[in-house]
Amino acid sequence: MSESPLSSLILKGTSKIVLLVLDGVGDLPDLGRGGLTPLAAARTPHLDALAPAAALGRLLPVAIGITPGSGPGHLALFGYDPIATQVGRGVLEALGAGFELESGDVAARANFCTLGGDGVVSDRRAGRIASEVCARLVATLAREVPRIEDVGVLLEPGKGHRFVAVLRGPGLAGPVSDADPHHEGAPVPASRAAGDDPAAAKTARIVNAFVARAAQVLHGESPANGVLMRGLSARPVLPGYRERFQLRAAAIAAYPMYRGVAQLAGMEVVPVGERVADAFAAAGARWSEHDFFFIHIKGTDMAGEDGNFAAKVAVIEEVDRALPDLMGLAPDVLCVTGDHSTPVPVKGHSWHPVPVLVHGRWCGADGAARFHELTCRTGSLGVVPSRDLMALLLANAGRLDKFGA
Amino acid sequence: MSESPLSSLILKGTSKIVLLVLDGVGDLPDLGRGGLTPLAAARTPHLDALAPAAALGRLLPVAIGITPGSGPGHLALFGYDPIATQVGRGVLEALGAGFELESGDVAARANFCTLGGDGVVSDRRAGRIASEVCARLVATLAREVPRIEDVGVLLEPGKGHRFVAVLRGPGLAGPVSDADPHHEGAPVPASRAAGDDPAAAKTARIVNAFVARAAQVLHGESPANGVLMRGLSARPVLPGYRERFQLRAAAIAAYPMYRGVAQLAGMEVVPVGERVADAFAAAGARWSEHDFFFIHIKGTDMAGEDGNFAAKVAVIEEVDRALPDLMGLAPDVLCVTGDHSTPVPVKGHSWHPVPVLVHGRWCGADGAARFHELTCRTGSLGVVPSRDLMALLLANAGRLDKFGA
Repeated sequence: MSESPLSSLILKGTSKIVLLVLDGVGDLPDLGRGGLTPLAAARTPHLDALAPAAALGRLLPVAIGITPGSGPGHLALFGYDPIATQVGRGVLEALGAGFELESGDVAARANFCTLGGDGVVSDRRAGRIASEVCARLVATLAREVPRIEDVGVLLEPGKGHRFVAVLRGPGLAGPVSDADPHHEGAPVPASRAAGDDPAAAKTARIVNAFVARAAQVLHGESPANGVLMRGLSARPVLPGYRERFQLRAAAIAAYPMYRGVAQLAGMEVVPVGERVADAFAAAGARWSEHDFFFIHIKGTDMAGEDGNFAAKVAVIEEVDRALPDLMGLAPDVLCVTGDHSTPVPVKGHSWHPVPVLVHGRWCGADGAARFHELTCRTGSLGVVPSRDLMALLLANAGRLDKFGA
Repeated sequence: MSESPLSSLILKGTSKIVLLVLDGVGDLPDLGRGGLTPLAAARTPHLDALAPAAALGRLLPVAIGITPGSGPGHLALFGYDPIATQVGRGVLEALGAGFELESGDVAARANFCTLGGDGVVSDRRAGRIASEVCARLVATLAREVPRIEDVGVLLEPGKGHRFVAVLRGPGLAGPVSDADPHHEGAPVPASRAAGDDPAAAKTARIVNAFVARAAQVLHGESPANGVLMRGLSARPVLPGYRERFQLRAAAIAAYPMYRGVAQLAGMEVVPVGERVADAFAAAGARWSEHDFFFIHIKGTDMAGEDGNFAAKVAVIEEVDRALPDLMGLAPDVLCVTGDHSTPVPVKGHSWHPVPVLVHGRWCGADGAARFHELTCRTGSLGVVPSRDLMALLLANAGRLDKFGA
């Protein structure tokens, strides 16, 4: 099939779109609870009030059977092809750690390791050192190796032996190969550029110099006397909401990862606390400045990962209680969905399609009594690839011209 | 949409997957029988017991409106793009005749014809000679023309005037053009290679020599005094289940065609009798040796081809009676579906989507009372291209990693 003509049909407008993402909201029926999912079991009078006049369906985030990570899940919601739009692991990790990446930055997942006297990696995780030890060693490295050549080295400690490294300077490019043997008993391999791009070659050189300098600085430490780096990738330059859709977009999210991916998509990020009411209040505060509001609610995913049905229900009910605040802003189009399913029995992300609700003047009224997995199965939207959702929202917002005469 | 990232996400595992293919099972409602299809009319207590906890949907074998042959139908179920994965007619015919094709073999559909004194084909089917005559003439050719140059000629008689020829020797390649005028009143054209591949040129030369030698050997016969060859194609080399999916796959099938296509897909073939119970017993006997079991049941297709509603119901009921033996093996994932529909009123293969049932721990429980065309229409799987079924089965078997972070 040819590409959609979407990009040539964008109209300017004054309508407002809200994309409310309940992370991992999709779930499976619990046969012990009468076959109900958390969405079906939750008490949601305000969503119920929207449902009959809304269009329901299901989103397919990446492809049939494919379980998406948070990066691809959100990139698809934002209208990118989640397979073609490769964002490196290092970049996603850096975004998750709260780095505001700039164009040209190269990011890596890094960790401390134990090196033998012969330079061989004897423990890739340095005995899984405590996070406090990691923070102290990262501070030491940051002080001792602030830059290499004309490239700044920015570090952020993570959990246990893990940290994130960002290289910032002129003429860098990713991806370059890992400075990580991926198994014990081998020396740290040199990072290499795949082709003959001088920027990738420079990046590999900086990475290798950093790994060598880190080993010198950490020489007296035990067990963490070396570092490994992998997923080395450059912040991608993606066309953003303004260029693609003529939308001034805001991202309202409590967690750095989602703010980061939204930033890649050209949204202005609005950090908020974890309470749903705060997120909706933040939307209200920015209402006149933006046309599109991505609001991210993390709790549904966390409850799913924990396998906690009641907790997932509670987050959904918290969203529902706060919903009048959001609807009080009178968005022209409201979409409620998720970036993927995180079913309670799976205790993790899954491949199952995600319920989606689109509410607006021209959405069609499916007449469903409620919004949940079962009603969405027979909804008028059918199964929609997540990457096509933006076209649907723009159309409902009156922001798409007719294709052809 | 870009290609699925499936191949980069394969995990090793110990879970077992059964793909139970009821050939041509999909059907149309019979208005004379209260709108029931054979699946809906059959008494299937064991399938009914699985249905509520299973996920239902419909498979689209090739594309909307396209009626698949057995080759494309199965190649799609095995996860290949059935349009891009071209398997020549000669190869499919040879597999159906029970040839165990080796890499490098070239196969052809062949038949006896009547040649006039001027070398012109006067009857492309040699008066549709009896199968016994065909067998005698094939035996004669096999004795008189066992090889040409360094290439062995292997022949297998078929029905009426038809037979299959396999060329086995060094340096052959297909496809080459038909040694068949496709209409009466013309001489047998020489087979030709399309490009300048020396292997194809050699193949065409061997084909032409065989056609000439056969006419000499058959000189005194009437009406079958010549041969035609078409669909000349080489056994394709496809990446198999082990390389693609890390699965040790077994094919349990009574008919050579399905064993042959499974062999192309890298499965180990297990011939069995036509009784369903024998097929399930064969799966049990091999249970520890394999991770994936393709079990092929032919009777549903034959009944559909015959337009025999009651016979199709009977085969489905035979499958259902034997089902406890299969479920007793406790497969982690069971899929029941077909390679295409063979509706009773059509009396042949058709383009209609095929009911599919997936049963496993994380399949979701659609809550359907039974498994048939109507319940599958509103199942949670929706419409799934057959070629994506393997991704779904691997996901349900816990054998796919997450895509992206």
